[in-house]
Amino acid sequence: MSATVELFSKVKAMEADGKKVTSLCVGEPDFPPPQAVLDEIIQAVSSGQTTYTAVTGTEELRSAIAADLLKRKNLKYKSTEVLVSNGAKQAVYQGVFALCGPGDEVIIPAPFWPSYPEMVALTGATPVILPTTIEDEFLINPKSLAAAITPKTKMMIFCNPSNPSGAVHSASLMSEIADVVREHPQLAVLSDEIYERLVYNPSNPHVSFASLPGMYDRTLTVNGFSKAYAMTGLRLGYMAAPANLLKPCVTIQSQLTSCASSISQAAGVAALTRVEESEMEANVEIMRK
Amino acid sequence: MSATVELFSKVKAMEADGKKVTSLCVGEPDFPPPQAVLDEIIQAVSSGQTTYTAVTGTEELRSAIAADLLKRKNLKYKSTEVLVSNGAKQAVYQGVFALCGPGDEVIIPAPFWPSYPEMVALTGATPVILPTTIEDEFLINPKSLAAAITPKTKMMIFCNPSNPSGAVHSASLMSEIADVVREHPQLAVLSDEIYERLVYNPSNPHVSFASLPGMYDRTLTVNGFSKAYAMTGLRLGYMAAPANLLKPCVTIQSQLTSCASSISQAAGVAALTRVEESEMEANVEIMRK
Repeated sequence: MSATVELFSKVKAMEADGKKVTSLCVGEPDFPPPQAVLDEIIQAVSSGQTTYTAVTGTEELRSAIAADLLKRKNLKYKSTEVLVSNGAKQAVYQGVFALCGPGDEVIIPAPFWPSYPEMVALTGATPVILPTTIEDEFLINPKSLAAAITPKTKMMIFCNPSNPSGAVHSASLMSEIADVVREHPQLAVLSDEIYERLVYNPSNPHVSFASLPGMYDRTLTVNGFSKAYAMTGLRLGYMAAPANLLKPCVTIQSQLTSCASSISQAAGVAALTRVEESEMEANVEIMRK
Repeated sequence: MSATVELFSKVKAMEADGKKVTSLCVGEPDFPPPQAVLDEIIQAVSSGQTTYTAVTGTEELRSAIAADLLKRKNLKYKSTEVLVSNGAKQAVYQGVFALCGPGDEVIIPAPFWPSYPEMVALTGATPVILPTTIEDEFLINPKSLAAAITPKTKMMIFCNPSNPSGAVHSASLMSEIADVVREHPQLAVLSDEIYERLVYNPSNPHVSFASLPGMYDRTLTVNGFSKAYAMTGLRLGYMAAPANLLKPCVTIQSQLTSCASSISQAAGVAALTRVEESEMEANVEIMRK
């Protein structure tokens, strides 16, 4: 079982026994979802949005995600290049499953979220751990990355800001990483940006990997609504990727779970279109503490 | 992509273009969820039930499911033997993935829901189609089943009532099927009971496979809230199984998606505990038409 989940299950069991537990094991924000999100859920229920949506998600939500990625991160995805999932976790798993299998290697920089190597193993591929050092501030060293790539390497999972180290890769370092990636046409990058707002230094802002020259074509951008919008229980995440990379992920999701919750999807539209940036910033301040 | 889903996506795209489409491709009930379910969603949002639950689902929902299975189907599962998923589809996939892999065979009686063989193929196992005949009223012939089992057969997917034929296996026929299964200790049965209420002949009621003598130990019982409660968009299903069979499914779910939506889980409790059987019967009458 996921190590994070196992610990979290113990916490929930202790709470059920009436014990007070202070848990640091899952990324559960200390604030509720924005009021606009809560209001939209009630509106969605009242207006009968309780039926299946397309597997990929509603056009309204996919468009809102594409617009958000363009506005905030200069990422140019069409709405049809967005796949909405039951949480970012599902998006990561499907990305690995779609592109990797037995005989393939997947590079995972350490320290890492415990689910990454487990997900890779579930697909039959081999996780290859790429250590980082305290001297490098737990950032990926491009030379070490180059040395870790073999002809079997199909993917690198790039969690930025890093869970758990919090390390944020600068634009110039990412450019060096992209230079390494560019030399290996078979290599895709799964860019997990779920903690994108956990950036403490304004002079070192978060940069999306797919926004680097030439990287759109080989990047799977993963994100979700759990952290910044405190919508953990609503299970809403997504992948954005060029059609040829997204399509096998859609195929897999169509057999695994179908669409994300229709109610959660409506809530996601409200999160992206009806929450003021000032409210987001106030929440992010709480997260940073 | 799932054939059902592909067709459904085309329907959704045509509707987005303003066309009126009568689709028969997905099992979408023609009635809304019960009012108690809708009310509970609003209550859950208002009371802050928007955070992660345990991966397995809330204790409240698991207990309600166990009580429902005991009351209606004489199935004696503990609440800890229930895993709540993002729809019954996920429960089926995880059951196959947990118990079968490359080199294993999975028997799928035909005609079948198109996702079954695709799910089996995704795990690397081999789907073995077991034809049924019009003379047998599309019911499983125990002799044919016995002939299809090899030492590699790890699972039979038993969809009863059958999607798409609607065939309902009688208690006596199921007893004969259990006799065949009993002779093969390596064989598990995934009993998909999502259409359990679509039974037209009161003298031939639905029987749960796990309720047959000796079958509890090797059965994965799958069901969900989409059909009888019209909660398709809420993505809520479950598996009930003995701990040794359930545990690997929990492990997989912990890496694939974590918990089902917290809001949908609250709605599921209301469905099982606050909807009168008379209301259910009225809905089922609509489904039968």
